Amino acid sequence: MATEAGKKRGRRPGASVTRQKVLDAARACFAREGYAAATIRKIAGEAGVDAALVMQFFGSKEELFAAVMSISPEALARFGAAFDGSAEGIGERVTRAYLDLWEGDPADSEPLLAMLRSAITNERAAEQLREFVQARLWDASGDKASVVRAGIASTMLIGVVLGRRVIRVPALVAEDRESIVAAVAPAIQVVLAPTTGS
Amino acid sequence: MATEAGKKRGRRPGASVTRQKVLDAARACFAREGYAAATIRKIAGEAGVDAALVMQFFGSKEELFAAVMSISPEALARFGAAFDGSAEGIGERVTRAYLDLWEGDPADSEPLLAMLRSAITNERAAEQLREFVQARLWDASGDKASVVRAGIASTMLIGVVLGRRVIRVPALVAEDRESIVAAVAPAIQVVLAPTTGS
Repeated sequence: MATEAGKKRGRRPGASVTRQKVLDAARACFAREGYAAATIRKIAGEAGVDAALVMQFFGSKEELFAAVMSISPEALARFGAAFDGSAEGIGERVTRAYLDLWEGDPADSEPLLAMLRSAITNERAAEQLREFVQARLWDASGDKASVVRAGIASTMLIGVVLGRRVIRVPALVAEDRESIVAAVAPAIQVVLAPTTGS
Repeated sequence: MATEAGKKRGRRPGASVTRQKVLDAARACFAREGYAAATIRKIAGEAGVDAALVMQFFGSKEELFAAVMSISPEALARFGAAFDGSAEGIGERVTRAYLDLWEGDPADSEPLLAMLRSAITNERAAEQLREFVQARLWDASGDKASVVRAGIASTMLIGVVLGRRVIRVPALVAEDRESIVAAVAPAIQVVLAPTTGS
């Protein structure tokens, strides 16, 4: 399907394919290098197009970034479901949901990694990451202590992802996802449901 | 005291003061913006000196970065001590040591924040952060599971710092350090000493 912009400017059908190539390259490049280091020139090179064409499609690096920062509603729904249900086992459900989302399908994990890597230099990325963390907080039962606990659990899990995918601590990179879940879940259980035990 | 470089080139005593001003500005700028976004020009501006002088002192941004990436041996010793001693209470000792180091005296916390913010685009920063995490892992009792557990505890704590100081999740920023310790320590206890209970 041609994009709205493509239709308006009467581009040939190939334009939407090219546009998607640019989006894919941008998502991978922002995820790998973060906002500050990813350049339009680099992204255009990886997409195999001219930098001028990228600017023609998106106008600016900021707008291109905004265009790739989306996570599929399906992934978010799966993720949200982990927080529902009984307190028993919530540590494992939430830990598994985090790792599945952040380390799973690149279509969903790359926008998150791009946000994480870019949050340091780009206020829009920091805001989106804040919103991602806070979206889970609204679901917390409402009292202040629960909100703080949900925020702590989220940032702890982001820390583990950071250790595996950005800092790349060898001992953590070497572990498979199930071993990480086994070690992390009891801690997240203690944070989210301190009275149920681990 | 004049620096070695200052003496060799016969600079007036003021040179070491100026050099220190550049180091202080660089440390703060790398901590705030990360390696990719901090520029020599910006650092020179904050130090109130000419960019050419910064280059004369340090040669390159990479070398300036290396010069500011040091944490005092006293702080590291205090930090290391938290991991010693009995398993009972280790969660609270380590949590407190992490927050004291990362959120305390800027002379020690700014190099760490600079490493964290720069690890994304700068391999030297990623390596130093990896070494910082791993230095603690060598102290783990030696079996593979303990090394993984120490790595998980470290990255979880870095995640909490990231949430407070980089992503700035409002619910976490609003909490004082003691409330954070109270919520986090039992989780770190479960990770580091799973059999002692929290």
